[in-house]
Amino acid sequence: MKLRRSGRLVDMTNYMLNHPHSLVPLTYFSERYQSAKSSISEDLTIIKQTFEQQGVGSLQTVPGAAGGVKFVPGMHIEEAGAIIDSIKKRMAAPDRLLPGGYLYLTDILGDPSIVNKVGRMFASVFAERKIDVVMTVATKGIPLAYAVANDLNVPVIIVRKDSKVTEGSTVSINYVSGSSKRIQTMVLAKRSLKEGSNVLIIDDFMKAGGTINGMVSLLEEFQAKVAGIGVLVETKGVEERLVDEYISLVKLTGVDVKGKQIELQEGNFFDAAKRP
Amino acid sequence: MKLRRSGRLVDMTNYMLNHPHSLVPLTYFSERYQSAKSSISEDLTIIKQTFEQQGVGSLQTVPGAAGGVKFVPGMHIEEAGAIIDSIKKRMAAPDRLLPGGYLYLTDILGDPSIVNKVGRMFASVFAERKIDVVMTVATKGIPLAYAVANDLNVPVIIVRKDSKVTEGSTVSINYVSGSSKRIQTMVLAKRSLKEGSNVLIIDDFMKAGGTINGMVSLLEEFQAKVAGIGVLVETKGVEERLVDEYISLVKLTGVDVKGKQIELQEGNFFDAAKRP
Repeated sequence: MKLRRSGRLVDMTNYMLNHPHSLVPLTYFSERYQSAKSSISEDLTIIKQTFEQQGVGSLQTVPGAAGGVKFVPGMHIEEAGAIIDSIKKRMAAPDRLLPGGYLYLTDILGDPSIVNKVGRMFASVFAERKIDVVMTVATKGIPLAYAVANDLNVPVIIVRKDSKVTEGSTVSINYVSGSSKRIQTMVLAKRSLKEGSNVLIIDDFMKAGGTINGMVSLLEEFQAKVAGIGVLVETKGVEERLVDEYISLVKLTGVDVKGKQIELQEGNFFDAAKRP
Repeated sequence: MKLRRSGRLVDMTNYMLNHPHSLVPLTYFSERYQSAKSSISEDLTIIKQTFEQQGVGSLQTVPGAAGGVKFVPGMHIEEAGAIIDSIKKRMAAPDRLLPGGYLYLTDILGDPSIVNKVGRMFASVFAERKIDVVMTVATKGIPLAYAVANDLNVPVIIVRKDSKVTEGSTVSINYVSGSSKRIQTMVLAKRSLKEGSNVLIIDDFMKAGGTINGMVSLLEEFQAKVAGIGVLVETKGVEERLVDEYISLVKLTGVDVKGKQIELQEGNFFDAAKRP
């Protein structure tokens, strides 16, 4: 359909937002709107400036015949800070404390707007890495994994604790949970992951890192590589961390069940985000 | 920040897309851009026309002091048809057949772009109902539930087959699986659902409907109401369906394990979508 500039700007903005990390040839837009490439270029400059000013992300232009424009979702560092602050605040509510010192986070992980923001933060900090797939373990990490994968334009694979008939043949490993020291099993559908894939691991919570370490071992079975590790909450005071390089948004530094106190700090997200 | 019309259109489009089913007062935008309300109104008219023309959804204007503008995600019926066709095509691939006549759908449910489209379809068909929360059962329905909830701007709650310490106190029921006739348990965190809530149930697959029927019974324990039921795939040839009113995108009409044939038809989505 033929559209004027104002209509094109609205439609192109919607299109780019819905196709992150995809190279869109300029001819696609010039045919879509029956407009000259020079007009499309001008439109894209306006979108690029607005996106960068507002911290939505960047538009990267790839020149040449095989070129085009790519939207890379991002976030201003100030906005990321405000989001981490608000998550910390919500998580610190004393009524979250469960028997045994566990934290009730189900409502936070059930809020799509928080999940999307957390996903955007991980997608922006891992934007420059080569990532073919996002991996998580059932159940609580699933929404975060999809939010990240959505912004990176890659599929999600889900590791389970038991195999299901609808998964077909599976690969399973035994691993030792870092905190409880119990032997557990995790399972991944054989056909869900190609050999040599670059995998971003996302999860909601990391104590000693046993579960994530299990996922890393599982990846070895598939001859796949760890492209990065991101967790929403890490806990402090772990004797021996099984995982070295990871990015966390929030760090749980203290839980006082009797005094009903939950202490939280920023995770190491900003160390990574500030790196040039 | 002060923005010209072109920049405002880009930023407002992004803002509205990220705040579906939220009433945004016009003063929010006029303060955000330091622009007159009359200019904002003109901008919104352009966005509304483009969204409606392109099948992105509608912008609804609520007049008066407490008024504003609301983005209701939608989809053209032709696009919905094309999506259902492409899902049917992908699902019909013979290598999806697993022993026992089960279908491997993990890759389809692992593709965020498909999941988002399916979510948008359910969100548009249920757009006019009063919905406070989207409910699903772990694990496969989770991404679909979040996609729908995202477009409806409501939280997600997840029913589990076993209770976990991080959920706090729970309500559990026993139910009979419609196809296997086995007694099973499902569990929901007590504090995850308020009394009187209107709940949209979303799942990936429905045979006789035992699981969904179980969720309906669980809702009764919470004095909550079923606002609607949506499933990606329903199967035909079920003796007695336990659930009456639901919307399906695809119907599995035949599986021939020996001949490696999978037969699929459209679900009842269009009957509902075409209703005025």
